[in-house]
Amino acid sequence: MPAAFSLVRHVEFAETDMAGIVHFSNYFKWMESCETAFLRSLGVPLIDFAPGQAVGWPRVNARCDYRAPLRFGDAVEVSLAVHEIRTRAIVLRFTFRRVVAGRTEPEPVAEGELTVVCVTGDGRGGMVAQPIPPGIRAKLEAGSS
Amino acid sequence: MPAAFSLVRHVEFAETDMAGIVHFSNYFKWMESCETAFLRSLGVPLIDFAPGQAVGWPRVNARCDYRAPLRFGDAVEVSLAVHEIRTRAIVLRFTFRRVVAGRTEPEPVAEGELTVVCVTGDGRGGMVAQPIPPGIRAKLEAGSS
Amino acid sequence: MPAAFSLVRHVEFAETDMAGIVHFSNYFKWMESCETAFLRSLGVPLIDFAPGQAVGWPRVNARCDYRAPLRFGDAVEVSLAVHEIRTRAIVLRFTFRRVVAGRTEPEPVAEGELTVVCVTGDGRGGMVAQPIPPGIRAKLEAGSS
Amino acid sequence: MPAAFSLVRHVEFAETDMAGIVHFSNYFKWMESCETAFLRSLGVPLIDFAPGQAVGWPRVNARCDYRAPLRFGDAVEVSLAVHEIRTRAIVLRFTFRRVVAGRTEPEPVAEGELTVVCVTGDGRGGMVAQPIPPGIRAKLEAGSS
Repeated sequence: MPAAFSLVRHVEFAETDMAGIVHFSNYFKWMESCETAFLRSLGVPLIDFAPGQAVGWPRVNARCDYRAPLRFGDAVEVSLAVHEIRTRAIVLRFTFRRVVAGRTEPEPVAEGELTVVCVTGDGRGGMVAQPIPPGIRAKLEAGSS
Repeated sequence: MPAAFSLVRHVEFAETDMAGIVHFSNYFKWMESCETAFLRSLGVPLIDFAPGQAVGWPRVNARCDYRAPLRFGDAVEVSLAVHEIRTRAIVLRFTFRRVVAGRTEPEPVAEGELTVVCVTGDGRGGMVAQPIPPGIRAKLEAGSS
Repeated sequence: MPAAFSLVRHVEFAETDMAGIVHFSNYFKWMESCETAFLRSLGVPLIDFAPGQAVGWPRVNARCDYRAPLRFGDAVEVSLAVHEIRTRAIVLRFTFRRVVAGRTEPEPVAEGELTVVCVTGDGRGGMVAQPIPPGIRAKLEAGSS
Repeated sequence: MPAAFSLVRHVEFAETDMAGIVHFSNYFKWMESCETAFLRSLGVPLIDFAPGQAVGWPRVNARCDYRAPLRFGDAVEVSLAVHEIRTRAIVLRFTFRRVVAGRTEPEPVAEGELTVVCVTGDGRGGMVAQPIPPGIRAKLEAGSS
């Protein structure tokens, strides 16, 4: 599946740990950053508290396979592909590749996945899953091909 | 000023950085953890969205002086003293001390301060400063002596 | 499989996000905190840079299923079970349960898994996988039954 | 004092808290990101473990004044000025301004300061303050005017 969206970021000092590599929890934040930029590029709201049209995308599953470490200052390309659009959920797949100066092909370092569910307000301050609204579905389908 | 509250925590792996020490940003989270536990012990709400009595405590100033590093696994005692109760704000001071097995006196490693302002909802989704409500002020005064 | 270790913690303010719930990335830090406390209880080093016996446990896979949200102030019990001890890796499974005052049974809110590989220094500043040293394996086996 | 360096970033979802605004601890990470990019632009090493020339810049003071909140998706410009170059330390000042589409002048939202000390290895795995090496000092002076 071709990537629908990608971004490149540099590893921050605060993202490293005492083993000298990026702490594994940061890859989950990077997936979300990439998802945010992707949805924004499509005009899909990430979170909206407007009565009657409240929408959010809580995660029901998150996973990551780590193949090689990243270090402070490394440039990492995060690419997103829409793997599946279900009635109430979307499965997003991510690849992380280290961008190496002078090399054409970035080095794969990790792969991840987020399954996010479309929710709306339940009228009592909580959230309840809902079918992805047609307008949002159309944007996701257009943006993921 | 005597400490009004203190807690002890262990340095987590995720709190270290590639220099092998605790990343400086974590001390600010620890101050807030200590503040939270202190206010909870007094029955003072940290955040409350109830209409008519919404209350929150955003920070207007935060600072920390670092004297010695902390490392993975270190036990650190965070102590809070209420330095000042103003009309709309509270100034909290913190000392961080490394607890060393077999030593009576923990080693001072850092000192910090948070100035937090009492706010309420402005009716348009934002926040506006308000005088600290009398009931909350009474609890703070009782708890800080 | 029975839990080999568990701890209880309170949700910190800094762990919430604008949806009013705990940000999903924090569950991965909590898994690691529980793993750290477990390994420490067994006398197994988490990270050791000593020449000739350097050891570390980088993650090769991390995943989490989220069933119900957690909110600021919630008490959450994190339990660890050693699911598998391989030649070079350990698979740890975690359950997250919300502790509700007055209820005997905590409410399950999430399940997670970490696969961590035993590494040693490669002599050039990097890391290389190694069979889990016998002394460490014995402690893990004793601690997980 | 004119800004020596600046960058613009978007507020990430993970940087917000349940009050709907950016958690105050993140401003300290952003200061460091800006410092990192600044020092990198000058060719000054941020951290270097090379024997005989080990160098690092631990923080001895960090502070921030918050004037207005930032929210998810906001674009924030972080600007750095070198306030002072001492024998062993540098004082960096930061301004945070919200970039508003269609407005010429960004809105000031916060100001911060980091005091960082130049250290080298003490030969026993620790760190010791050292005068800023002349080559690094020259780059800092050239880059801050």
